[in-house]
Amino acid sequence: MNLLFFSGVYSLEFYLTYCLHLTEFYMSLPVPSVHKAVRLHPVDLTIHDRIEHPDDAIVKVKLSGLCGSDLHGYRGHEKIADIIVTGHEFVGEVVALGSSFTSEAISRPPLYSTLQLGDEVVCPFSTSCGECQFCRIGFTSRCETQLLFGSTTLAGAQAQYVRVPKAGGTLFVLGNKKSGISSFHGLSEASLLLLADILPTGVFAALQALQHPNILPVIRGERYPLASAGGLSCAPDNDYYRLEELLTDIHWPAMKGDDRILNIAIIGLGPVGVCAMIALLDLTSRLKVHTCLFVVDLVQSRRENISKVYYQLPLSVRGMSKLFVGDVDVIEGIVKKETTDVGCNAVLEIVGHASALRLAYTLIRPFGVIASVGVHQEPPIPFTGRELYAKNVAMVFGRCPVRTIFPLAADLLRRRQDVFGEKGCAGVERVLSIDDAPEAYRKFAANEWGKIAFDPFK
Amino acid sequence: MNLLFFSGVYSLEFYLTYCLHLTEFYMSLPVPSVHKAVRLHPVDLTIHDRIEHPDDAIVKVKLSGLCGSDLHGYRGHEKIADIIVTGHEFVGEVVALGSSFTSEAISRPPLYSTLQLGDEVVCPFSTSCGECQFCRIGFTSRCETQLLFGSTTLAGAQAQYVRVPKAGGTLFVLGNKKSGISSFHGLSEASLLLLADILPTGVFAALQALQHPNILPVIRGERYPLASAGGLSCAPDNDYYRLEELLTDIHWPAMKGDDRILNIAIIGLGPVGVCAMIALLDLTSRLKVHTCLFVVDLVQSRRENISKVYYQLPLSVRGMSKLFVGDVDVIEGIVKKETTDVGCNAVLEIVGHASALRLAYTLIRPFGVIASVGVHQEPPIPFTGRELYAKNVAMVFGRCPVRTIFPLAADLLRRRQDVFGEKGCAGVERVLSIDDAPEAYRKFAANEWGKIAFDPFK
Repeated sequence: MNLLFFSGVYSLEFYLTYCLHLTEFYMSLPVPSVHKAVRLHPVDLTIHDRIEHPDDAIVKVKLSGLCGSDLHGYRGHEKIADIIVTGHEFVGEVVALGSSFTSEAISRPPLYSTLQLGDEVVCPFSTSCGECQFCRIGFTSRCETQLLFGSTTLAGAQAQYVRVPKAGGTLFVLGNKKSGISSFHGLSEASLLLLADILPTGVFAALQALQHPNILPVIRGERYPLASAGGLSCAPDNDYYRLEELLTDIHWPAMKGDDRILNIAIIGLGPVGVCAMIALLDLTSRLKVHTCLFVVDLVQSRRENISKVYYQLPLSVRGMSKLFVGDVDVIEGIVKKETTDVGCNAVLEIVGHASALRLAYTLIRPFGVIASVGVHQEPPIPFTGRELYAKNVAMVFGRCPVRTIFPLAADLLRRRQDVFGEKGCAGVERVLSIDDAPEAYRKFAANEWGKIAFDPFK
Repeated sequence: MNLLFFSGVYSLEFYLTYCLHLTEFYMSLPVPSVHKAVRLHPVDLTIHDRIEHPDDAIVKVKLSGLCGSDLHGYRGHEKIADIIVTGHEFVGEVVALGSSFTSEAISRPPLYSTLQLGDEVVCPFSTSCGECQFCRIGFTSRCETQLLFGSTTLAGAQAQYVRVPKAGGTLFVLGNKKSGISSFHGLSEASLLLLADILPTGVFAALQALQHPNILPVIRGERYPLASAGGLSCAPDNDYYRLEELLTDIHWPAMKGDDRILNIAIIGLGPVGVCAMIALLDLTSRLKVHTCLFVVDLVQSRRENISKVYYQLPLSVRGMSKLFVGDVDVIEGIVKKETTDVGCNAVLEIVGHASALRLAYTLIRPFGVIASVGVHQEPPIPFTGRELYAKNVAMVFGRCPVRTIFPLAADLLRRRQDVFGEKGCAGVERVLSIDDAPEAYRKFAANEWGKIAFDPFK
């Protein structure tokens, strides 16, 4: 497999002609006849970025991100069976809509009746219909029709235009170009790109740890399972079966000060790891929970960067926390010492590699939670059954439901421009032309550059 | 390793002599000089059941259970390095107490100042001090000093007398023999034995599934992660950071009727699997949640028994549920059909074998929860990283904190004597003499007999 880069990979003339004859199916802004894209080439193939379904939108890409998971294909860790347009993070402007977008689509997700040409949007890295059971429940990343941008099933966003299937269930509107109305005024433009993947994924990792029934006792100062009993007792239409009554009935020593310190490790300090730390501290500072963070990466520049991010956060956010940064050996020693050999309450595993899971097991305490948002590949999970039993390990794996987490991530992005904005160390480090993609992939893969965005019209 | 059975394995004369000279260290009821025990013999060794530490109690065993996990050693799946007295489930009477038990022990767990000779007690299958961080938080099964009855580190309960370390943090008092006061009057005596392990473990398995943030949306009819946001918002001393505000703000389709059906599989229908089903239906019926149960076992007699238990439950408990019973192939097909190829919200894995975990993966839907309370051995967890990522699988493993779950299990036992009592199909099937242990182990291991209790004085 070779990585080839083209300027003007194909013509959109066919698409435009098609438009003229089938105007009842979509509205359209002028789309130029040539655009640039980054593609991985196993074989030669022609692709067509056009409205293929009434639920589609075409988005003109303003910024497109380069993400660690783009490197799985680039490095050959993931088989690519076909030419793919890479990239799954983008913000841009809606320039064409399928025929489903009409004011009469009131029984469908709201965007089908409200999305307009000229709307500025951000898009999760996978599509979601907003209409299946998984979407209704909030598990949008496992929508029954979900497609991943930048995969063999859906062309990616390191391109000038991108087709968004199920756009009414997938996109978020940030504002409108013509009207100038935006709910994200004053924010760094590049920072909005973080909403497509890495910031929601960081929030998701933090939430999966903090909301777990095994962690709530530390946060709430109530014993297990009393701390999580509320979840089962306050649904409005049940008979208020109160586990609390039974559990508060017994005499037992109260929790002490030390029991309420959250000891959390983060393995992998790339852009998602940084976002996870910020999301975690944002939550624990609001919850007034003392937090001890043990953050680990093999790469020195990443360790240096996360320290900078930490000290860019205001005291109101980091004031109840301690940070320990190191490589594997250093952090193993520090966790032992700081937790008196007990280990961490939770480990956020952001690498997607068996070695990171092994380290997570070493660092976790009994009844701890391993939240893994890394994109794992073929190797087996490196634990024996006895190991997981012996430590009562809880684990959560998988892809962030970005569409669901978006409101939380957007709120965090607004409030934390100090770290995500132009002067922040947690934001986009450089904005490049797609022509710079070969160098960008190389340096990003070598950990020489941080978060990269492409401006495909630069 | 041979399984040998003795009558009168050793003398307690040494112990009694020791008593007379050190009366300031403990109180004591008359203990006979000979008692019977079931032991696994790799080598010859003398053991001493006596007060070894001021926190010890000696319990005269009334009933002692035979549990599936006793079979790990019996079958040779677990290495036994030394002679052990087997068994980890028992109810009995306190006949000797160490010197820690005094009215002045007010800064320690309550039993150190209240436990009395003649108290009738049930004991979790592992000890817990009630004083370390794990105990304070409720994770008593991973107490820093925990010892497992019937292991090489602590003599078991298939014996006439058993030593209970950290007895003030470990035991539960059911009543007092002399005074006749009991909070468990009218219950089947044999059913109390279920409180030592299998009933709390069943409750724990059910709770681990139902309290999980991925399952709460189905129970509460609120989207993820809104359904679990309450856990983070109502600690009394924080600033009530309300995730709800952000998450209820967005327009999204409401959950529909079908989204609120809990589809749950139970793999392994031995005594713990039966208890898990009862605990699950008890909770879901009170929560008024429609529940579809898919229960699976290789053994026909167990499948038949769980159906009997189900129909012994009153309509108020099973009325909102459906039950499907089958072997692996049958249940795989039924789950596909009933969930339209989506799979189960949760799987309770009660076997402790890699093949059961594989089946759990096949049956689980994306964002589903696998709650494993089986005692796993050396084989690796049979999942690749990609598989767990692809289905966003959540898993929880490990040993039930019986001491913590006890109030919930005791409440359930009181209310469900219809299935746990003498005429119930979920209770102890037969009470035998320890002399019958060889036959009991053989028939229990061959799935010919259900739950067995030994009366060591029979």
